[in-house]
Amino acid sequence: MKRAVVLLSGGLDSATVLAIAKAQGYESYTISFDYGQRHRAELHASALLSEQLGAVSHKVINIDLTAIGGSALTDTNIDVPHEEQAGIPVTYVPARNTVFMSIALGWAEVLEAEAIFVGVNAVDYSGYPDCRPEYIAAFEKMANLATRSGVEGHPLKIETPLIDLSKQAIIERGNELGVDYSLTVSCYEADDQGRACGQCDSCRFRKQGFAQAGMTDPTRYQP
Amino acid sequence: MKRAVVLLSGGLDSATVLAIAKAQGYESYTISFDYGQRHRAELHASALLSEQLGAVSHKVINIDLTAIGGSALTDTNIDVPHEEQAGIPVTYVPARNTVFMSIALGWAEVLEAEAIFVGVNAVDYSGYPDCRPEYIAAFEKMANLATRSGVEGHPLKIETPLIDLSKQAIIERGNELGVDYSLTVSCYEADDQGRACGQCDSCRFRKQGFAQAGMTDPTRYQP
Repeated sequence: MKRAVVLLSGGLDSATVLAIAKAQGYESYTISFDYGQRHRAELHASALLSEQLGAVSHKVINIDLTAIGGSALTDTNIDVPHEEQAGIPVTYVPARNTVFMSIALGWAEVLEAEAIFVGVNAVDYSGYPDCRPEYIAAFEKMANLATRSGVEGHPLKIETPLIDLSKQAIIERGNELGVDYSLTVSCYEADDQGRACGQCDSCRFRKQGFAQAGMTDPTRYQP
Repeated sequence: MKRAVVLLSGGLDSATVLAIAKAQGYESYTISFDYGQRHRAELHASALLSEQLGAVSHKVINIDLTAIGGSALTDTNIDVPHEEQAGIPVTYVPARNTVFMSIALGWAEVLEAEAIFVGVNAVDYSGYPDCRPEYIAAFEKMANLATRSGVEGHPLKIETPLIDLSKQAIIERGNELGVDYSLTVSCYEADDQGRACGQCDSCRFRKQGFAQAGMTDPTRYQP
């Protein structure tokens, strides 16, 4: 059976990606990161989703990005904004996707996996540079020059099934595939129980997506 | 003053790179990784070298690559070989340079650094895929698509001043620049005091380099 490493943040997008990898016949190995983010609720969600969506194995890697900082998500001195911002917002974590996909690349090589699945999206998103198709293409090229498997003629694919989809389309696809979105945590400032603030960028895109899909929003909000 | 992040393993190559960055007028921010490698002596060496060679700041990042394994350096069930091997040897750590350079990329972005210096070498080396010029070029291209600084027109350079040099030429260059090679630890199986085995790939290349340079080998060997 073909294998894939799936990056799982515990949010709506990556949960949908995991369901898509399964539907495409992959044996999924999920990977999540304890990187000093503002809350651990998303790690709890990742473990639950891995189980619910039939991942073969779920791994949490510790990597302290607060040692680098430079983002509202990894430096508690920088506030998470509650309004839309021009340009790349302060929730952008420098090189985060590159760091996460690089570690996934190492695991993919050990597993002899054929693909890494990642839930980046360049439609209803925050304008992060490392979510764009040209970035993903460049990462894939680099990855296949970096590794033994690439050199030995077993190239790896970086699969981004959500990249061109609206949030509405992502939710509709996940719904067809049985994703339980009440388990997912998208909020940048979720509380210990995984309840969302309803105001950050991530909450706004998510809320809008459920509204546009004509679905009841299953998100648990803070009182 | 222009800034650079310098990857420092505590070995001969990266120490020389740090001296070269300084000679080129960079303010150096050194970064080392506690990744579950076989010994910590190289981390001690990195701290000493950062101080001796005038780095502005030295950072150690914890990232547990033993959770991934797949190498004699990150899985103690795989022995470090003492003879030359055909192809890519078992000391190759899957995606290690990519992981390390990605984290350096995040820090470089926060520092608004102009360059990342890395001591890869494709002459007297072990045949690791992530030491080749085509890999470095692909990483640089990816990096400038990944980051805010790249998008905003401040591209970052990946500087590899050793890539075409023989071990002899590296040692001669470092010697001119005042690197104290007795502080460096190259051995894959150094003991707690940083003393080398004298038999692994890394020791063999190093020994040969000092012999070819006609220099006394300052390496401290295990009794």
